[in-house]
Amino acid sequence: MMTLCTTAKCLAFYIMESGSEEDATCAVAQEDIVSAMLKVPKGTRDYAPAETRIRQEVIDIAVQHYKRHGAVTFDTPVFEMRSLLQKEDQYGEETKLIYNLEDQGGEEYSLRYDLTVPLARYVGMNKLGEFKRYHVAKVYRRDQPAMARGRYREFYQCDYDYVGQSGLMIADSECMKIIDDIFLELDLGEFVNKVNHKVLLNGMLEVCQIPSDKFKTVCSSIDKLDKQPWVEVRDELVNVKNIHENAVDALHGFLTLRAENPKMSNDQVLDTIFARSAGNANVEKGISELRTLLEYCTAYGISERICIEPSLARGLDYYTGVIFEMVITKSSFENAAPNAEESQVKKGKADKKAAKEDSNVGSVAAGGRYDGLVKSISKFDAPCVGFSLGIERIYRLVQRRNEARGLKVRDTDTDVYVAVSGRKEFKDLFLQRMTICTQLWKADIKTEYAYKAKPKLLNQLQYCEQNGIATMIIIGEDEVARGVVKLRDVASRAEEEIPISDVVVKVLERLGRQ
Amino acid sequence: MMTLCTTAKCLAFYIMESGSEEDATCAVAQEDIVSAMLKVPKGTRDYAPAETRIRQEVIDIAVQHYKRHGAVTFDTPVFEMRSLLQKEDQYGEETKLIYNLEDQGGEEYSLRYDLTVPLARYVGMNKLGEFKRYHVAKVYRRDQPAMARGRYREFYQCDYDYVGQSGLMIADSECMKIIDDIFLELDLGEFVNKVNHKVLLNGMLEVCQIPSDKFKTVCSSIDKLDKQPWVEVRDELVNVKNIHENAVDALHGFLTLRAENPKMSNDQVLDTIFARSAGNANVEKGISELRTLLEYCTAYGISERICIEPSLARGLDYYTGVIFEMVITKSSFENAAPNAEESQVKKGKADKKAAKEDSNVGSVAAGGRYDGLVKSISKFDAPCVGFSLGIERIYRLVQRRNEARGLKVRDTDTDVYVAVSGRKEFKDLFLQRMTICTQLWKADIKTEYAYKAKPKLLNQLQYCEQNGIATMIIIGEDEVARGVVKLRDVASRAEEEIPISDVVVKVLERLGRQ
Repeated sequence: MMTLCTTAKCLAFYIMESGSEEDATCAVAQEDIVSAMLKVPKGTRDYAPAETRIRQEVIDIAVQHYKRHGAVTFDTPVFEMRSLLQKEDQYGEETKLIYNLEDQGGEEYSLRYDLTVPLARYVGMNKLGEFKRYHVAKVYRRDQPAMARGRYREFYQCDYDYVGQSGLMIADSECMKIIDDIFLELDLGEFVNKVNHKVLLNGMLEVCQIPSDKFKTVCSSIDKLDKQPWVEVRDELVNVKNIHENAVDALHGFLTLRAENPKMSNDQVLDTIFARSAGNANVEKGISELRTLLEYCTAYGISERICIEPSLARGLDYYTGVIFEMVITKSSFENAAPNAEESQVKKGKADKKAAKEDSNVGSVAAGGRYDGLVKSISKFDAPCVGFSLGIERIYRLVQRRNEARGLKVRDTDTDVYVAVSGRKEFKDLFLQRMTICTQLWKADIKTEYAYKAKPKLLNQLQYCEQNGIATMIIIGEDEVARGVVKLRDVASRAEEEIPISDVVVKVLERLGRQ
Repeated sequence: MMTLCTTAKCLAFYIMESGSEEDATCAVAQEDIVSAMLKVPKGTRDYAPAETRIRQEVIDIAVQHYKRHGAVTFDTPVFEMRSLLQKEDQYGEETKLIYNLEDQGGEEYSLRYDLTVPLARYVGMNKLGEFKRYHVAKVYRRDQPAMARGRYREFYQCDYDYVGQSGLMIADSECMKIIDDIFLELDLGEFVNKVNHKVLLNGMLEVCQIPSDKFKTVCSSIDKLDKQPWVEVRDELVNVKNIHENAVDALHGFLTLRAENPKMSNDQVLDTIFARSAGNANVEKGISELRTLLEYCTAYGISERICIEPSLARGLDYYTGVIFEMVITKSSFENAAPNAEESQVKKGKADKKAAKEDSNVGSVAAGGRYDGLVKSISKFDAPCVGFSLGIERIYRLVQRRNEARGLKVRDTDTDVYVAVSGRKEFKDLFLQRMTICTQLWKADIKTEYAYKAKPKLLNQLQYCEQNGIATMIIIGEDEVARGVVKLRDVASRAEEEIPISDVVVKVLERLGRQ
């Protein structure tokens, strides 16, 4: 029986078994219910103010670059028609990770799995072509969460895509340029953009005499190579997916080309693949397009961080051309000299932990060309190329970099604190504080004051120190009577008396805004 | 039987009845499926780029004010434990509007209904007090959508709340100040903040001898007064909710006090209620607190837009103190002189339409004090006061104001377009365009160029005109050979030849950034 607890202060409801109406049962039941309510869903998390700020800074950097290239943004609902998201050939095996809404009103909806299919739906519905768009929003995947590695069930994506016709590799190379600029500005360390081409990949599979109806499943195995050793992937290919041993071993030769020759230039890698492919048309097409891409990357000044990687095989089915994946190869903070003493003490331990976690971070951005997607869900056709930033992973790297450098992120940007001081019997001076705050706010100066009637001056000082507020305006009854206030520098504790009428001007001066 | 279509280009799946495998069936089935996928869920909508920009500008204004007062932000998941959201005494009758997720993995979740309960959950979980926070995020209500009036099933909220102890009416009056500043800056017209107090309201119900166990249901009827005439509400109270006629008529005297005396001052309204209440303790307490609030509103310089309204009764159950609702009383664009000629032509018609829709807009912000909420879901106690902006409604007003004033919102902020020109046989000059763009991007100049190999100059000019891009850099084979480019002012069509090496400096000059 569902009933309300009869204890006066208990507002929680609980399931009461008949005959067990003692308070004890209620307390236990209430505790259970409270703890059941007082958590977040599995695989999700809250972000505290400082964490939210760091994440927002990452997003702001990305958006600034997207806008610099003329991208627009638009907004789509967080849930879409279930028939759209669960369509075959869309997310492949990952379809099972989609969250469905309860069918409460006749139509079936699901939470978006990425921002790409909603983009394609929007383009198909509105028959749009020829535009760049960015989209920052949360997506949902009912995957096994790995919180320590930044893998959540709810996470932000921060996508850039170009929809429309483009000269060969023109839009694709601009994607490379944007992503390169973003990671240079993020200052997370050395990075490399691994690049491959779906047509080249298919060509190599043909050369190895792998049957074309096995391409998708073979690519899905190849995609595991950054998490599993070759022996395991080989075993899966031969014994689970029934690919002939000779074909698998021939494939191995292509896949390890880059790993076994880390110093080979991109051109040499392409030359080597070409030499082994006996004129296969897809290999030739893929190589020719990648050479064009490399030429443009040189014009953009980013070619030294582009790495042709024949083993790259993105998991999703919808890619049709260039595919790429950005990885951090050496973090900027592993050897960074921390500023703050406290972090120097922790340095040794933190470094090892960071280094260990780094190797697990995986790709921080990924994308590619997907020319068939819009056509597959509408009667409109528009080629697309784009990428997605792994905001949660980047956020974790920025957070660790800040830690390593002893940087503290403030929760707010408050400039000034209007404090009150005086003897025990002093008045609350609320009206005076409000009047001064009103003037400061009017001048766009971020200002706070204590909500208590008679706060201790020490508490107000501590609040400023804890929150990094550099300036205090202190008023007391005597000062008010004389038409003055004290202006205090929180760090040095130096004070000067100024006329109340000068408060705004003096604070703007201190902020370098006048 | 679920099967894939056998037509080569058809990637959609459909339900195929045995024996009807003709292409015709497939085409029909596919068309149905495509149209079923190519829409957004009921009550939701996409926002196009210009719309997204306007909405973002509204949000930016609000957030700027929240930060000015020292508010932090944090982020919570879009879905919460179902037991939290569906708790009794939380959303009252509106609980049925909550979207549930399918139980796919053992735990039951629901989409958030507002940002207030997630805030209370966060505060209770982390035992936090004494902070101001803002939160901009989407919330979900399975209500009957009224798209024309800006009521959707998915919509943004933009909340400000203070959590923690505060001197009487101190945090409450700062809420009033913030909301007033935001609407002054939004420039939507004249507005008024209607204010009431839950304790005063309860006191008036006591004075009318309405039984206390009927308070909630009576308030729920009163809440309908801005949509329904008094005769209907009276009928509901007397005949459905069984309140004595004398009590209802006495109540009517309180509720119409403001409407019947629009010129009465706030103090006079409170005096009149006091005089009619025969020393009722709750009335006295409510009036005393509201007088303090009015005093602080005067110090903040906002009292002329505060209106004590005894008939205001917010629907949600969790309010315990001051409640308020901001309404636009006269829009700024009804009599606005439009700048652009074209909108002058449409003026008469647009004005009538706008005026008509305006009366339906309803409240644009609302909030109040809710001291019991955190305690009701956790073992932690923290009083709270805050409000929520009706972003969708405000957005619609801004959009109509811009229309009335002939303002056009650009989709992007692109500064420069790098164009190419030449004879039929001219080269694509992609590498040269990329090099120039790279320099401009590096100087944080928003730059685009055509993705076509040999675009017509006229098309490139039109693109600039359509997208409000003021400056073109035009290159051709001859110019490249001579190390120069043309700098063109799109509006005046004036051109000058400048050295390639001067491009960045000249553009920065034009942008007033050097």
